[in-house]
Amino acid sequence: MRLRNIPGADGYIEAHQNVVNNAAAYRGRWAELFGREGEIHIEVGMGKGQFLLNLAKQNPDIGYIGIERYSSVLFRALELHETEEFRDLKNVKFLCINAMELPLVFDTNEVDRIYLNFSDPWPKAKHARRRLTSHQFLACYEKVLKAGGLVEFKTDNQGLFDFSVDEVQGAGWKLLAVTYDLHHDPEMNQGNIMTEYEEKFSGLGNPIHKLTAARI
Amino acid sequence: MRLRNIPGADGYIEAHQNVVNNAAAYRGRWAELFGREGEIHIEVGMGKGQFLLNLAKQNPDIGYIGIERYSSVLFRALELHETEEFRDLKNVKFLCINAMELPLVFDTNEVDRIYLNFSDPWPKAKHARRRLTSHQFLACYEKVLKAGGLVEFKTDNQGLFDFSVDEVQGAGWKLLAVTYDLHHDPEMNQGNIMTEYEEKFSGLGNPIHKLTAARI
Repeated sequence: MRLRNIPGADGYIEAHQNVVNNAAAYRGRWAELFGREGEIHIEVGMGKGQFLLNLAKQNPDIGYIGIERYSSVLFRALELHETEEFRDLKNVKFLCINAMELPLVFDTNEVDRIYLNFSDPWPKAKHARRRLTSHQFLACYEKVLKAGGLVEFKTDNQGLFDFSVDEVQGAGWKLLAVTYDLHHDPEMNQGNIMTEYEEKFSGLGNPIHKLTAARI
Repeated sequence: MRLRNIPGADGYIEAHQNVVNNAAAYRGRWAELFGREGEIHIEVGMGKGQFLLNLAKQNPDIGYIGIERYSSVLFRALELHETEEFRDLKNVKFLCINAMELPLVFDTNEVDRIYLNFSDPWPKAKHARRRLTSHQFLACYEKVLKAGGLVEFKTDNQGLFDFSVDEVQGAGWKLLAVTYDLHHDPEMNQGNIMTEYEEKFSGLGNPIHKLTAARI
């Protein structure tokens, strides 16, 4: 995601009713915040929000939390949320935090599912720990994800995908499904919601890879 | 390539002895500028210059011209040229122009070879003409490339590569060689010089694709 500085984005985000600033205060009480008992699904590195908002629209009984580290990017997701198509959604909140802070914000077993879409590949070996599917991050997800809870990961980056399959297996997670060409895999593609990036690059003919893994 | 504004880059480039500002004035006389009759090879979208400078060091009898549209990127190539490893090279010049201007800068048959490395994929269909391997750009290269002259193109973007193979063939060029995994193709990989981008992404395990095509 190319980042552009958006003047005023920080203040806008802080003041926005759908952004939770004091996220740690809700640790263990996220279902409460959504006003009912229901599953909590999060997307880490949400980008401009198309994926999460469409998912939230389809599943009003699930609480969705979009996590994005960069305020200039989160700003775009908030803009999309305010369009006619999405403005009435009550089951979406946003956090502007680093993924490593997840255990500070969510209690053990509080999260039912984690989505990772087209994460930064951090191609240099010395930066491998920064990839959102590294065993370091998987250990972080284990602290908040229910046993049996899922991570769903999509990317068009083959190297990152191969790395991710290895990390998931090495960390003792159960790999439930893998495809190297999601859009031509009828079973895994069923109900697929495309991200902005996915639309652009699959339009050029690039295959999309996807894995689903369960925390044991 | 992520672009960062570099204050003063424009002035630095304009004043630099290895940058040709009035490029059109040398149309038909590039060999003369290099001080002898020899082949002229150009790289379009040169980036930070690692590929071109290493090539120039290996082949002192060939004149190399690096073409880069963005001054902030060309600035990095000039910096690399000034390092101890490359500063004595006499067979490299740089142009800060748009690739569509090539026929204004080079005469018919003046260029012997064109390198394209990891060009912007412009994934949206409506931007296909901006891809450096589109038939629009191939028509532009035909105006300056000798009959039998080569285009060598590398990318890790499969969609862009498939598109490029189609365009090259559709334009009536002769496809001499194609590989979808350059680094594991002993013949095509012989003497391969990696770009900065290629080093990073092949390190992650992403296969590099390459084609060589000749203007008939």
